[in-house]
Amino acid sequence: MKLATLRVNGGTRAVRLDGDVLVDLGYADLGALFAQDDWATIAAAATGETWPAEGADLAPVVPNPSKVVCVGHNYTNHIKEMGRDLPAYPTLFTKFADTLIGPNDPIAKPTETDALDWEVELVVVVGKPVRRATEAEAEAAIAGFTVMNDVSVRDWQFRTIEWTQGKIWDSSTPVGPYVVTPDEVGGVRPALEVKTTVDGQVMQQDDTGTLLFDPVHLVRYVSTVIRLNPGDLIATGTPAGVGHARDPKVYLVGGETVVTEIAGIGACTNRIVKES
Amino acid sequence: MKLATLRVNGGTRAVRLDGDVLVDLGYADLGALFAQDDWATIAAAATGETWPAEGADLAPVVPNPSKVVCVGHNYTNHIKEMGRDLPAYPTLFTKFADTLIGPNDPIAKPTETDALDWEVELVVVVGKPVRRATEAEAEAAIAGFTVMNDVSVRDWQFRTIEWTQGKIWDSSTPVGPYVVTPDEVGGVRPALEVKTTVDGQVMQQDDTGTLLFDPVHLVRYVSTVIRLNPGDLIATGTPAGVGHARDPKVYLVGGETVVTEIAGIGACTNRIVKES
Repeated sequence: MKLATLRVNGGTRAVRLDGDVLVDLGYADLGALFAQDDWATIAAAATGETWPAEGADLAPVVPNPSKVVCVGHNYTNHIKEMGRDLPAYPTLFTKFADTLIGPNDPIAKPTETDALDWEVELVVVVGKPVRRATEAEAEAAIAGFTVMNDVSVRDWQFRTIEWTQGKIWDSSTPVGPYVVTPDEVGGVRPALEVKTTVDGQVMQQDDTGTLLFDPVHLVRYVSTVIRLNPGDLIATGTPAGVGHARDPKVYLVGGETVVTEIAGIGACTNRIVKES
Repeated sequence: MKLATLRVNGGTRAVRLDGDVLVDLGYADLGALFAQDDWATIAAAATGETWPAEGADLAPVVPNPSKVVCVGHNYTNHIKEMGRDLPAYPTLFTKFADTLIGPNDPIAKPTETDALDWEVELVVVVGKPVRRATEAEAEAAIAGFTVMNDVSVRDWQFRTIEWTQGKIWDSSTPVGPYVVTPDEVGGVRPALEVKTTVDGQVMQQDDTGTLLFDPVHLVRYVSTVIRLNPGDLIATGTPAGVGHARDPKVYLVGGETVVTEIAGIGACTNRIVKES
């Protein structure tokens, strides 16, 4: 299944993509759906109101997750090409719900930075409450996968030793368009092409199968530290090719269209606009 | 006023401390109260049901804030003990709502660590929505102050370059007991004794008036990056004397009573218990 949260009638609705229509699932958003023990059965069986998928105004797949956990340094090829040793543990940081935007919303370049950058990421969407998950529990807790552009304000990110202040800018981070269940992407450790283009130029391109810490490992690791709730998001890190690491560096100045895409899941397509 | 969130009748209630009783304010918790534009008037005027303050079972002052932003490196003495230079910008990291516990709840030492540590902190509680706050807006947005013990799992904190995984452990971080309004502590830049004792031995002792980045500065800084909502918490950093910086290092092993206290606000008193 491909599931999304649709903005409609001044609110939102959890929907399933059926061909070229979106079908109402009876819940306000995917967070509310995933909170149901039998969400997969509910989502598969629903026969509610429909809306056209084309041109749909999509919200972040989960608009108000209790946690957005992000991972750094996780693509093996990128780590090796930089001459680094493979890390023993995942590097974790976080975002807030107020940081998220819909998959096609414009991204406002804050006036406070001239170092706005992209980072395409595969996102694990949690579908069951877990703490200290076993391998089997972690596999079963993965509702599906989506795409995030982990938009980063590099000058603020590196003002101090903690990245947080470059990662949590208000309404900066598209997530979507769909949560795709594992059965549609080859399971809970999918090997999918992951790519960023800026105005059509390929900037990042890799394979999610080369993640050092795979989705199941990350659910186990994060859930050792803190409970994961239905709708929580784990962004699994970005491959080589970010603007900040280029020579010369390339940043988003306003006017560009950035597409972050994972094969079989979909794309976030976002226009960069200057804040007024 | 001194305000709290009381656990009672299987739920919670926002309350005001009047002498030795807690008065119901008509809201489920302080987060719901602070979401009202005129919360201060409501809180001052309320004449609801009362409960004894002594022995009250208090929840985290705001049980489900949209953001918990924490600041590192903000007391000169602590910066020096960690071997660092005085910073130009606040260092920010975050916690989750699921990380918070009540001011007198036991703290379970996770089986995964032998490096559990304390950090007493003055916490700013946000009372108005703000983004890119001016000085006056930031001052007006401070509902009051409370106390946090920013309990830290040092071995996990330093596994990677990002502290997050040592700071977000489930149900690890007491916050409370009261939100005290600025008029009762000398304004929005209070100079109050801040102290930690472990089994009666003083471990940290400083003055919140010596913060490098004061509460108003922090509200302005964080709100530049992301909106602050009523009930959001900004923990302003910890002074010298944490266990990890001692020679030899001192960690909490289970069985201790840790008291983190700020004069005029109150104390979190927490028993360390071994996880079974």
